[in-house]
Amino acid sequence: MVKKLQIEIAATAGFCFGVKRAINLANKAPDKYPTLQIRTFGPIIHNPQVVNQLASIGIKQVDNINELVQGVVIIRSHGITKQLAQELAQRPNLTVIDATCPYVRRAQEIVAKMSDAGYQVLILGELDHPEVTGLISYGEPQRTLVISKPDDIPAEFFTKPNSSRIALLAQTTLSQQLYNKIVLSLLTIKGELRCFNTICTATSDRQSEALELAKRCDCMLIIGGRNSANTNRLHELCTERQPASYHIETAEDLKAKWFIGKQTIGISAGASTPKWLIDGVLKSLENL
Amino acid sequence: MVKKLQIEIAATAGFCFGVKRAINLANKAPDKYPTLQIRTFGPIIHNPQVVNQLASIGIKQVDNINELVQGVVIIRSHGITKQLAQELAQRPNLTVIDATCPYVRRAQEIVAKMSDAGYQVLILGELDHPEVTGLISYGEPQRTLVISKPDDIPAEFFTKPNSSRIALLAQTTLSQQLYNKIVLSLLTIKGELRCFNTICTATSDRQSEALELAKRCDCMLIIGGRNSANTNRLHELCTERQPASYHIETAEDLKAKWFIGKQTIGISAGASTPKWLIDGVLKSLENL
Repeated sequence: MVKKLQIEIAATAGFCFGVKRAINLANKAPDKYPTLQIRTFGPIIHNPQVVNQLASIGIKQVDNINELVQGVVIIRSHGITKQLAQELAQRPNLTVIDATCPYVRRAQEIVAKMSDAGYQVLILGELDHPEVTGLISYGEPQRTLVISKPDDIPAEFFTKPNSSRIALLAQTTLSQQLYNKIVLSLLTIKGELRCFNTICTATSDRQSEALELAKRCDCMLIIGGRNSANTNRLHELCTERQPASYHIETAEDLKAKWFIGKQTIGISAGASTPKWLIDGVLKSLENL
Repeated sequence: MVKKLQIEIAATAGFCFGVKRAINLANKAPDKYPTLQIRTFGPIIHNPQVVNQLASIGIKQVDNINELVQGVVIIRSHGITKQLAQELAQRPNLTVIDATCPYVRRAQEIVAKMSDAGYQVLILGELDHPEVTGLISYGEPQRTLVISKPDDIPAEFFTKPNSSRIALLAQTTLSQQLYNKIVLSLLTIKGELRCFNTICTATSDRQSEALELAKRCDCMLIIGGRNSANTNRLHELCTERQPASYHIETAEDLKAKWFIGKQTIGISAGASTPKWLIDGVLKSLENL
């Protein structure tokens, strides 16, 4: 008798609120603007299969702003810089659909408001992540700083008098632990520390559930784009708990040898992984 | 040969900035208002000997606001409530000298400003301490709360949406550890957490130095009023490190038996303990 593989899919696997919204906006665009050329500025989300699927219905990716002169442009879920957004808004023959995640938009507004109010703004996140590139552009360059660890906090912050004012916020996908660590290390500053918890719990909820699965399954599959930071992080975390954890983009990446002697397979997927990619993996597993 | 006692006095023992300022203001008052009756509203600081010394030069303590109709009133270093301050200011024949510690005044202003701006104000401190009684009076009663431990934070704070806004400040003599603990437990709230570190480092500096002394001395003397919260806390902390720690108000409280077999005596004193009381203890010790 051949024992059947038990498969468990995380409830939090796949599209988060912001990605779902961005893809909906993109899918509706051809009906709303049937005569116009529609483009996304950069990849709309970090998933090559979704980007390809949109290209197949005519919504192609453009990386150079000079190519965006007329038609419709969709701004990606991670957001873009203030300067680029202003430039696009000023083009008379271009319609802009802003698919920036509302949580990212809120963080951009906090940077702008705090910087205008004279605060030293600290953005906790990855310097090169597109969301952070967008966030930092909303602050005065002289008083907006990206940090990723307590050591990045300038020493002078701790010697300033009562009048010092610091505003702290985070990349929406940051871990709560790192956020807590940074806040703790800022608590001895005199003056004011204004903390905006801009972390979206979708990421931490997805991570917690995947870790629980990784604990009780023989093997973990993490589905998502190789260029997706949150998918990579999900895979990394699961590997620590369950060495038999594999990062795949599609069902084609599956290898039969992974499942030899395994009984339970856990599945999770990044915030930019569509349901149809998860379903494709499930179908392939059933045929194994 | 009789071995002499080694005595070490903490550099941070005695008057803090705010107390020194309050006593200076009181001592100058008779010269400034030679013809007027001068009173303090409540004890000007928490030290009975200083209160008695001021009484001996005619500056007596009054506890009932109805007795303050004319002359000069000195507001104590811990501050009073907004309502009492307004009432005193409105009395036509009364001159008010505000000896509220500037650090406490700053904390009062933060409560008022944050409450006016619609924040939920959290004051971390002892509910019955006169400083806290003053602080809380500057906020709207519906949205100003005194807490002393993480469990005091209302559960609803953690379920409120992004729009929730909390401002946190502390009694100026609070420990940095407790402040950190409370901030940490508030970090998962969505929305905004505005932290004002209103802790005066004089208290923690005095505590750290006294603990160092308690570690290397055979016996510790803590000089200060029995009604002084910071002196009591100093004694408590030293006792944990050095069981032979004694809280005294004046040299008269010294007992010869405490020093039998001891070689090194450490001395510290609360923020409201004058130099002349410390000197009196030193003189008595030299005569032992």
